[in-house]
Amino acid sequence: MAEEKNKYKTTVTIYGQQYTIVGDDPPEHVRKVAKALTEKMKEHKSLNPYLNTTRLAVLTAVNLVMKT
Amino acid sequence: MAEEKNKYKTTVTIYGQQYTIVGDDPPEHVRKVAKALTEKMKEHKSLNPYLNTTRLAVLTAVNLVMKT
Repeated sequence: MAEEKNKYKTTVTIYGQQYTIVGDDPPEHVRKVAKALTEKMKEHKSLNPYLNTTRLAVLTAVNLVMKT
Repeated sequence: MAEEKNKYKTTVTIYGQQYTIVGDDPPEHVRKVAKALTEKMKEHKSLNPYLNTTRLAVLTAVNLVMKT
């Protein structure tokens, strides 16, 4: 049953905003992903300073999917 | 030289907003990614209707990284 699965609740800061991630991913993994994503967003922002946070997040997501 | 590489410029709509993606990825791939990302964002929005677009995009990106 789904209810029997381990569920973790991790609060992280991504690009200055707090997010609570609930799921099967252990906190140390969620924190690592949050850190990597923040760095990637900062990198994109430095290349495209005119981007607002929504466009920045969408373009970072596009970039991440493109690489998979 | 970087300038000699093939560069594509593709305009796509992601979650209702237009984005121009410049890079080595051919237009058909960019369009596929844009469509997949829009669907993923819509899916997240239906599960979390209170999310604004920025948080939605960030959480979708977290989700995409988590799966890689």
